[in-house]
Amino acid sequence: MTEKSFKDLPTGDQHLREDRISGEDIYGGIFLHMKRDKILLPDGQEAVREYLTHPGAVAIVAILDDGRVLLERQYRYPISKACIEIPAGKLEIGEDHLLCAKRELEEETGYTAKKWSYIRRIHPVISYSTELIDIYLAEDLVPGKSKLDDEEFLDVFAAPLEQLITWVEEGEITDVKTTISAYWLDRYRRGLVKPQTIE
Amino acid sequence: MTEKSFKDLPTGDQHLREDRISGEDIYGGIFLHMKRDKILLPDGQEAVREYLTHPGAVAIVAILDDGRVLLERQYRYPISKACIEIPAGKLEIGEDHLLCAKRELEEETGYTAKKWSYIRRIHPVISYSTELIDIYLAEDLVPGKSKLDDEEFLDVFAAPLEQLITWVEEGEITDVKTTISAYWLDRYRRGLVKPQTIE
Repeated sequence: MTEKSFKDLPTGDQHLREDRISGEDIYGGIFLHMKRDKILLPDGQEAVREYLTHPGAVAIVAILDDGRVLLERQYRYPISKACIEIPAGKLEIGEDHLLCAKRELEEETGYTAKKWSYIRRIHPVISYSTELIDIYLAEDLVPGKSKLDDEEFLDVFAAPLEQLITWVEEGEITDVKTTISAYWLDRYRRGLVKPQTIE
Repeated sequence: MTEKSFKDLPTGDQHLREDRISGEDIYGGIFLHMKRDKILLPDGQEAVREYLTHPGAVAIVAILDDGRVLLERQYRYPISKACIEIPAGKLEIGEDHLLCAKRELEEETGYTAKKWSYIRRIHPVISYSTELIDIYLAEDLVPGKSKLDDEEFLDVFAAPLEQLITWVEEGEITDVKTTISAYWLDRYRRGLVKPQTIE
């Protein structure tokens, strides 16, 4: 038996699609907002989908002049762990994604960058959140003073890409945006992929 | 100015830690459950953390004898997109993670595997969900009949790793477990990393 290829699949997504019939806001928390929609399955049955609405986020692969990657260590309460991550943050309502990346990098690390490029969009939680993360590359960094919120506690430091990949492969880094960015940067340095130039 | 290295950071995570003071279940949905905890910040201030509790999940990198990777296309309502993904599913209460991986692979694709290894754990949503995904490698596959739930609609197909990576880098694949698995498999085939043998 040979498994089908992509070209053998039905064209389009009509046989998979779930269409919204109606929806309600079932919980509005301080940070998280939950919705429950009644939907129509491809075969005409009705079903229910619960999910969080999220404003979206950005993450930044920031490269120092010595080639090291700018990192943070931050306690992540839901998984009870101080995580090593690249800088990231949530979009404010209506905020331009690149401006958000510039703001978050400066607020959390103090650095500004003279060169910005766009790497890629990822969806971390496709089964129950609308969240997207747009990942940017920041180069030609200029150090400055961070402006953390009153409730933000984090370590800022830098590490070579090889160390970052070792942490990923030994299980010390489990955060997905940081894992994907480390692998991407490795492919970039090997000349296999390029970011989109912005300015 | 030279940015600090990891070894220059304070030892341990006491200066970052958030400790639970009290907690409440603030919403129990059909699928999603939300909690709100009062916590103590490292400086003694109190703060609030809202998050979802999730049973955890597994994902499977399943390799056919011709080297292609087994994939699914499934409509993901929160992001309104038919997503290309590796097989995955949620743990049932108390379920062994490997048994869950075997069950999900067979239910969704019909395949069983004679060889299983463990790749890695990832945390897709460190800021607002307890979710973890354990990723397994399944080899020596034997085709069979899938047993989809009444409400599950998905395409099963296979593609070469090179195609998978192209889809990731062109933005067609945005799902994080699939992206990380594609990059991992590339490193595995290049002899840079190994999974943990299970049986």
